[in-house]
Amino acid sequence: MNVLSFGEILLRLAAPGYTKLFQKDCLESTFCGGEANVAVSLSVFGVNSQFLTKVPDNDVGIAAVNALRYFGVDTSKIIYGEGRMGLYYLEKGASQRPSKVIYDRSRSVLSLADRQDFVWEEIFEDVNWFHWTGISPALSENMANICLEACKAAKNRGITVSCDLNYRSSLWPSDKARLVMKEILSYVDICICNEEDADKALGIKTIDTDIEGGKLCDDGYVRGAEAIHSNYGCKYIATTLRKSHSASRNGWKAMIYDAEAREAFFSKEYDIQIVDRVGGGDSFAAGIIYGLINEMNNQEIVNFATAASCLKQTMEGDFNRSTVSDVMQLLTSGGNGRVQR
Amino acid sequence: MNVLSFGEILLRLAAPGYTKLFQKDCLESTFCGGEANVAVSLSVFGVNSQFLTKVPDNDVGIAAVNALRYFGVDTSKIIYGEGRMGLYYLEKGASQRPSKVIYDRSRSVLSLADRQDFVWEEIFEDVNWFHWTGISPALSENMANICLEACKAAKNRGITVSCDLNYRSSLWPSDKARLVMKEILSYVDICICNEEDADKALGIKTIDTDIEGGKLCDDGYVRGAEAIHSNYGCKYIATTLRKSHSASRNGWKAMIYDAEAREAFFSKEYDIQIVDRVGGGDSFAAGIIYGLINEMNNQEIVNFATAASCLKQTMEGDFNRSTVSDVMQLLTSGGNGRVQR
Amino acid sequence: MNVLSFGEILLRLAAPGYTKLFQKDCLESTFCGGEANVAVSLSVFGVNSQFLTKVPDNDVGIAAVNALRYFGVDTSKIIYGEGRMGLYYLEKGASQRPSKVIYDRSRSVLSLADRQDFVWEEIFEDVNWFHWTGISPALSENMANICLEACKAAKNRGITVSCDLNYRSSLWPSDKARLVMKEILSYVDICICNEEDADKALGIKTIDTDIEGGKLCDDGYVRGAEAIHSNYGCKYIATTLRKSHSASRNGWKAMIYDAEAREAFFSKEYDIQIVDRVGGGDSFAAGIIYGLINEMNNQEIVNFATAASCLKQTMEGDFNRSTVSDVMQLLTSGGNGRVQR
Amino acid sequence: MNVLSFGEILLRLAAPGYTKLFQKDCLESTFCGGEANVAVSLSVFGVNSQFLTKVPDNDVGIAAVNALRYFGVDTSKIIYGEGRMGLYYLEKGASQRPSKVIYDRSRSVLSLADRQDFVWEEIFEDVNWFHWTGISPALSENMANICLEACKAAKNRGITVSCDLNYRSSLWPSDKARLVMKEILSYVDICICNEEDADKALGIKTIDTDIEGGKLCDDGYVRGAEAIHSNYGCKYIATTLRKSHSASRNGWKAMIYDAEAREAFFSKEYDIQIVDRVGGGDSFAAGIIYGLINEMNNQEIVNFATAASCLKQTMEGDFNRSTVSDVMQLLTSGGNGRVQR
Amino acid sequence: MNVLSFGEILLRLAAPGYTKLFQKDCLESTFCGGEANVAVSLSVFGVNSQFLTKVPDNDVGIAAVNALRYFGVDTSKIIYGEGRMGLYYLEKGASQRPSKVIYDRSRSVLSLADRQDFVWEEIFEDVNWFHWTGISPALSENMANICLEACKAAKNRGITVSCDLNYRSSLWPSDKARLVMKEILSYVDICICNEEDADKALGIKTIDTDIEGGKLCDDGYVRGAEAIHSNYGCKYIATTLRKSHSASRNGWKAMIYDAEAREAFFSKEYDIQIVDRVGGGDSFAAGIIYGLINEMNNQEIVNFATAASCLKQTMEGDFNRSTVSDVMQLLTSGGNGRVQR
Amino acid sequence: MNVLSFGEILLRLAAPGYTKLFQKDCLESTFCGGEANVAVSLSVFGVNSQFLTKVPDNDVGIAAVNALRYFGVDTSKIIYGEGRMGLYYLEKGASQRPSKVIYDRSRSVLSLADRQDFVWEEIFEDVNWFHWTGISPALSENMANICLEACKAAKNRGITVSCDLNYRSSLWPSDKARLVMKEILSYVDICICNEEDADKALGIKTIDTDIEGGKLCDDGYVRGAEAIHSNYGCKYIATTLRKSHSASRNGWKAMIYDAEAREAFFSKEYDIQIVDRVGGGDSFAAGIIYGLINEMNNQEIVNFATAASCLKQTMEGDFNRSTVSDVMQLLTSGGNGRVQR
Repeated sequence: MNVLSFGEILLRLAAPGYTKLFQKDCLESTFCGGEANVAVSLSVFGVNSQFLTKVPDNDVGIAAVNALRYFGVDTSKIIYGEGRMGLYYLEKGASQRPSKVIYDRSRSVLSLADRQDFVWEEIFEDVNWFHWTGISPALSENMANICLEACKAAKNRGITVSCDLNYRSSLWPSDKARLVMKEILSYVDICICNEEDADKALGIKTIDTDIEGGKLCDDGYVRGAEAIHSNYGCKYIATTLRKSHSASRNGWKAMIYDAEAREAFFSKEYDIQIVDRVGGGDSFAAGIIYGLINEMNNQEIVNFATAASCLKQTMEGDFNRSTVSDVMQLLTSGGNGRVQR
Repeated sequence: MNVLSFGEILLRLAAPGYTKLFQKDCLESTFCGGEANVAVSLSVFGVNSQFLTKVPDNDVGIAAVNALRYFGVDTSKIIYGEGRMGLYYLEKGASQRPSKVIYDRSRSVLSLADRQDFVWEEIFEDVNWFHWTGISPALSENMANICLEACKAAKNRGITVSCDLNYRSSLWPSDKARLVMKEILSYVDICICNEEDADKALGIKTIDTDIEGGKLCDDGYVRGAEAIHSNYGCKYIATTLRKSHSASRNGWKAMIYDAEAREAFFSKEYDIQIVDRVGGGDSFAAGIIYGLINEMNNQEIVNFATAASCLKQTMEGDFNRSTVSDVMQLLTSGGNGRVQR
Repeated sequence: MNVLSFGEILLRLAAPGYTKLFQKDCLESTFCGGEANVAVSLSVFGVNSQFLTKVPDNDVGIAAVNALRYFGVDTSKIIYGEGRMGLYYLEKGASQRPSKVIYDRSRSVLSLADRQDFVWEEIFEDVNWFHWTGISPALSENMANICLEACKAAKNRGITVSCDLNYRSSLWPSDKARLVMKEILSYVDICICNEEDADKALGIKTIDTDIEGGKLCDDGYVRGAEAIHSNYGCKYIATTLRKSHSASRNGWKAMIYDAEAREAFFSKEYDIQIVDRVGGGDSFAAGIIYGLINEMNNQEIVNFATAASCLKQTMEGDFNRSTVSDVMQLLTSGGNGRVQR
Repeated sequence: MNVLSFGEILLRLAAPGYTKLFQKDCLESTFCGGEANVAVSLSVFGVNSQFLTKVPDNDVGIAAVNALRYFGVDTSKIIYGEGRMGLYYLEKGASQRPSKVIYDRSRSVLSLADRQDFVWEEIFEDVNWFHWTGISPALSENMANICLEACKAAKNRGITVSCDLNYRSSLWPSDKARLVMKEILSYVDICICNEEDADKALGIKTIDTDIEGGKLCDDGYVRGAEAIHSNYGCKYIATTLRKSHSASRNGWKAMIYDAEAREAFFSKEYDIQIVDRVGGGDSFAAGIIYGLINEMNNQEIVNFATAASCLKQTMEGDFNRSTVSDVMQLLTSGGNGRVQR
Repeated sequence: MNVLSFGEILLRLAAPGYTKLFQKDCLESTFCGGEANVAVSLSVFGVNSQFLTKVPDNDVGIAAVNALRYFGVDTSKIIYGEGRMGLYYLEKGASQRPSKVIYDRSRSVLSLADRQDFVWEEIFEDVNWFHWTGISPALSENMANICLEACKAAKNRGITVSCDLNYRSSLWPSDKARLVMKEILSYVDICICNEEDADKALGIKTIDTDIEGGKLCDDGYVRGAEAIHSNYGCKYIATTLRKSHSASRNGWKAMIYDAEAREAFFSKEYDIQIVDRVGGGDSFAAGIIYGLINEMNNQEIVNFATAASCLKQTMEGDFNRSTVSDVMQLLTSGGNGRVQR
Repeated sequence: MNVLSFGEILLRLAAPGYTKLFQKDCLESTFCGGEANVAVSLSVFGVNSQFLTKVPDNDVGIAAVNALRYFGVDTSKIIYGEGRMGLYYLEKGASQRPSKVIYDRSRSVLSLADRQDFVWEEIFEDVNWFHWTGISPALSENMANICLEACKAAKNRGITVSCDLNYRSSLWPSDKARLVMKEILSYVDICICNEEDADKALGIKTIDTDIEGGKLCDDGYVRGAEAIHSNYGCKYIATTLRKSHSASRNGWKAMIYDAEAREAFFSKEYDIQIVDRVGGGDSFAAGIIYGLINEMNNQEIVNFATAASCLKQTMEGDFNRSTVSDVMQLLTSGGNGRVQR
């Protein structure tokens, strides 16, 4: 079972600890990205995980590729070209102070990619599952077309397609996002999102939440999932329910909706003392994919994906370095945190 | 509107992270001080902020001045002389373990300053607001006289005077403090303090608090403010109400009392996961000054100052690096800590 | 009053902060070990504390000895020999993610020690108190014999013997532990343990706890202590009661049982925001020894030991660097964490 | 005497120590740039130094401005706008391994600046000296025009103009550079360059050097300076003569040619053990400007500028943090490196 | 062309900078080993490079594998088992102070490997070149047999075999080494060594050197190579000639002897300012293999390998991160160290 | 043989690497001092080494004591009192840039010590050798008297007295130094100095050196030593001869003059690539003391002391962490820097 994730890999430049950006004169440098995070998590889970992107043909691009190879991700399909690596600056929040992300990703080498760069028939030859997110079509007109082509080609070959809606207001306005995403979503089997994504990228607002207050309504999530299914035909809709008490403490649970069975399954809620919440949603997506690939039942899938993404938020960096046995240990122990010797 | 803050700038030598002093063989070195913290916060808020002090005419003194210039503070009035930079060692507490401060500031270049060093008529030429704290007169007999002279000169020119009582038991005993502070306070328009300051520096103990238990009584604060007003004529009294649950978690709210209106205004209480609480009170003072300068109404002032000082305690270092828009964002969001992209 | 602690000193290689092992390319290197931790804590308390072990006669062994000398521990009885320093890798947990310990201590120089290495008559010449733990006999057959000999020799000379059961499943199976420990325990005056130790090392399971849920029953602890006394004749049994809410938050209290008085004394419970929990039990043992040496009453002893070990868990590293006055300050303040200037 | 330097400020992301890029997962982050380096050095020398540029109106741009303010540079003329901060990655070389610079500065906010952004009549109101370099016109067509306009406006007001040719092959080809630079150079009073700049930016190749072998011929430099003077009318031509033995050891001397006096003055040669050579040329330019402003004689000027730039290469970072007295100390001591207590 | 390197991968724990071991309380942790270094260098050169070893089946073993995957080494043949990771402590020397290595590698998981662990017929299926070193047979009796079997199997399949003699006196005495190495060397096509290896591992002492004085005689090296060829039939003998002036400065050149052509080829000598000399010999071996695989002529091969290993010694860590183009740049530039922009 | 060193222990706050003071926001913090450096070096050599000083009775003073205990120095005679720890800021030089020391040691707890603090009859009870330096009497009038008393008391008990002249111009002027030192020196058996000390502290200028140029004349040193002997009766005069080529490279050799034998012995000269030269002279003094204690012959003594102090300058920090076997290894190898495995 080969899973191909496709998207941009970025350089993340993070202020150390709880300092403000440029308070100290070094930046922690790691490579990441919504889709790369999924690829790494799947590889750590033991899945044959491939990653496709375009990177600059210089030491920065090579370092990005190496960062994926470290975790065993198959990077042989990655394309090299002239251009720049997109990047973002991160300031980690604490308590009432929110984390801040400053993007510097415009005109990155991937956003300037041509349709000819990706010959999907060849790319998909040995692929069983294709994962992408709503960030990619937001990068450029070209990338929107490339994503559509990729999904069509995947569909033609009978490849399962999963998409994390991942709406980013800094990349495109909601109306533009809806226009593009609605077309591509009909080729998607598994749709992963949170309540904001569903609204901004698909216009599905039946989820009646009061996010600021941290109150989330389970029923609304089910209705939202039903709407996604009835409009786009997705077989599974998986959503995360984050209660943001502060930058340091979040409630975290999730739902998977099985459209065929017309049934929703909810995980327990974890009360997380946040170490680094960036990449939480991506690690959830990887958990969902892992569960489906391994034919867990729906309750097991949502339990696994939620536990996996809970663990991600207790470690530094975008990548979820948790193994399947780490996740299982959390499911068994309930998270009491006793030392493992 | 030019605000001049006057006081000592110190070298802070802090043990990294949650280590004990000298557990690691490096110390984090930054410059700070109750009044310098106010000057920096005001400058970051966009106010024309000047700082007056005396520093050693060597690389240590220059580095201190540079640290202020970094934030745009006008340092052109600072005096250089032979002598030493005062400093303190800081060990950051956690949970039940308190933070520890070891002062090594005696016989610093400022504490040995002469009255001739400061020609107030010239210094105040372009100044609209003068801010000082109860630390300065505690440094030496000379400094007590200098503070008195400064306040008189300010009054003469119609400059608004604010003072943070900032009682430090390691610098002087309570009876000495009261003797000195009571005389100078009659020249002060805005008095900033907490319940301990009011007691130790002014002998105003009507505030009936059980600090150890973290229980604070709003009424007592109002009565305390009234007493300060009736004794010294201050127009505004602003007090912080810290509930010290542990070194890691504090409740934080504040009050401003408008003597003319005979009315007290309380902020909401923030439940803070502490990153670095040193400088919390100073950032509150800066918030009060900012609010008054910008003619916010009383409720807005105390809301702004409390939110500003809440944010300070969620970041590393003594300085509050929060901008006005950061503070406004907290007032709007309520502190849910969602990532800002 | 000279206290001799005997056991292995290990190199601890810890991933920095909340990173996963080898996520960063450095490891924090300190020396520690259950018995060495007790020796250091006693020395910081002002007790004449000696440490006995065998270390490699190279720069690693010397560094381990130096790390103890730093705190004033008398290391003159330590033996040097050819061999390797045992070590362990530590990954600090957070929230739902548990800390992980990977031991690499097999065939260490101490585990390969001969009985001739230790001439107890000479070693004990100026010793009043002998402390060891259940880790030592688990290291090797030889070490089990050496511990038995040491306890017998101590008994002969009228030296008080304390033992922390410290069961480690990675070193020996429970049935092996019980066989060995039961024999040696009859020479022990003060037995220190938690509920798991009592079960795994002694087979005393009357403590009916549901650890995972964090529910602990005071009564069971008293019954367990009575059983230890009636089976092995120990005069004092001291147990810690940890409620592991998560890797970041623990409830912590303790009991001392005075067999002669047939009475148990419980401390208050501390709600700890964990900085580093490794060494918590050892610092408790040191607190118990300190209390008994200084002839505190039973309630004072358990209060002191619990407060001491609470503080340990709020600082980095295995060693408890808290002084007696630090502990007293916590007992007085109740742990409000206000800055000490 | 107010000196205005104009150009781009960049974020420099440097691999720590002698590691390769991304070998460690942090990057040392500082702000710099050929013209900013000059502005800082002049300010540290005590000159009234202004800096003009355009930066992004976000936390990255503000941090860049703060980095200059730290040294007392007047940043009040800096323009803020939407866009990105140019940056470069630096890998420091050692011995036979060269330093590597990877630029990511295309489409920076300054390179996209409009001619209307800079109203030279206002900008130059209080300016006596204008400094720019050949990097700025290389950034974009617009910037080439802006530089030309600036020089014309400066000339009109009788402002002295200095230019460091600073040819960068990665920004523009030699023929393009020559076309542009030749036109602007006629407005330049002081031309600063090395032998490669003179060739690539002006086509003046009379300097017959064998750079690879490190052999430089003094005579050629004089002839080159004469050619620059006769073609463009520059009054002073200052050139550095670097002998690159390896990335760790360089010979460093310089020449100033006084066109009116028709005489060249050479400094002694320093044998430098390199700490960080980036910014060496910029610190030389600052030294030349300082010498001319302070009406040193020609020999003093070239001695001062060479010593200043020698010191720069013995410290970390692009900025020359040496004071005038540091430079004088080197001129006096000859560089024996004895400890200054 | 697939090259398989076989040997132990170790954890290297290095004191930071020029500190003594345990002077600071962290150790830089990287994975390395004579054969792993070759595998990484070949992969960075673009060769299909496989690595074979046995590692512990825990987080330490996985991290070691990841460190190789980072560089694209094929790690799919690596075996996991119960046991410990060998390691060494490194203190970097400077000037007159030598680097110190303290091994803690005894009873590592590889040294305890069984002959059944390695089924050479399968392992060699897709292999064209087999590289091993004299460290492996020194680890244990088993490993000596395994190396012999491997070489025989390789010979049978017509695989080219290269061996770096790499004598380590701390692993085995010279007479034992000679006994074992002489037998295996007859299966080796390319023998890589320095003068000490040749003497200690093979007893070939015709090289008449005075190492301490740094005087090396080219002729002796040729005679030594002839002797190796005539005794063991190796087709190529490549030797490095290090002049150890101090821990900070070394002369470095090398020779390759082509037995068929009966001709020796010497590189130029590099005067290296050492950054980290560990791994210098391994990077030379990788350079030789690369040159032979790519059918360079003999002079080109020795030039390439010497330049590659010169670069290695100018960067941190055991691995040579230089690309083919980095090496070519050195060959072209001669090592003047001018900045590459 | 118990050696007591007496003097001040200081906190050293050093800018990391080759940065300027306060360029980075941390300072490396270690404890040191001319006499403490000797005490540590002797202890590392295996000598029973005691240290006497007065330190603040707070966490800073305790950390200073711990830093000495780490190396096995007997600190039981150290006095604790109210006051401050003296400190200095250090900026490490490189190449032409000199190291800078900024003292902040005035009014330290030791400089304010009373004569009653030191009861020499008790202090000297178990002492065979007393070492002090010219820094101590320079601290204050009291300390000058205390040093004189100490030397007299030592003489009375037949204790050997060694003194390193260690003239510090920042502590006292030359004429004051001469007045004081001449009186005390008559009680000194072994006088250690360099040419500047001899001149400034004793007025012995027969050493005709041109320090700036690095040219030192052996003969002059011998005549200087003879003068010291004939004026003050010292039995041995040991002098270091530093050729300061730059902050990075020094020539280093030394002489011991045996007054009884009327003969001078010179070591070889080491060409040192400096890592940290502070403490070089102190490690030389320790070497001389070690040699005399162990009854080496004069040539051996000067060889040992010079090699020891050469090694000191190749490691970080003030302390010489070299063992006797490290020194012997340098004497044997000549400093070729080959890796020790």
